[in-house]
Amino acid sequence: MRARVYVTLKPSVFDPQGRVVADALLSLGYEDVSDVRQGKFFDLELSDTDTDPAAARARVTEMAEKLLANPVIESYRVEVLP
Amino acid sequence: MRARVYVTLKPSVFDPQGRVVADALLSLGYEDVSDVRQGKFFDLELSDTDTDPAAARARVTEMAEKLLANPVIESYRVEVLP
Repeated sequence: MRARVYVTLKPSVFDPQGRVVADALLSLGYEDVSDVRQGKFFDLELSDTDTDPAAARARVTEMAEKLLANPVIESYRVEVLP
Repeated sequence: MRARVYVTLKPSVFDPQGRVVADALLSLGYEDVSDVRQGKFFDLELSDTDTDPAAARARVTEMAEKLLANPVIESYRVEVLP
């Protein structure tokens, strides 16, 4: 079973990486880009003993809270794939 | 119009960040995690003069090739959202 966790800065938090990418795109002539936000994701390969998608989602959500995201400034979304 | 570009290391490329996250999860007791790969994504806000999704996709693919991804070691996927 596989799971993916998307982590993004909360909308109210300034994203300097995204700002730099937006500026670089502008300087390359892509003037239609008005904003860029950067995020990350983690693809987790879970062992086959996890067969219940709901249980896997709960476990991965726990991992996101504890390690993968910083809930103070980041939000996350968990997707469980069969 | 918005577009999202997902960038991941190609499967044959070693992912040290993912390795460290996998080790950290193991040490937290999540022994069912057998592998982690980390990727990133860019959310692009495009100005409203881009109304043709196919043209926007072509432009964003060009941005990915030129700036957002390193096609030697990374693969990318473009998603255009209305």
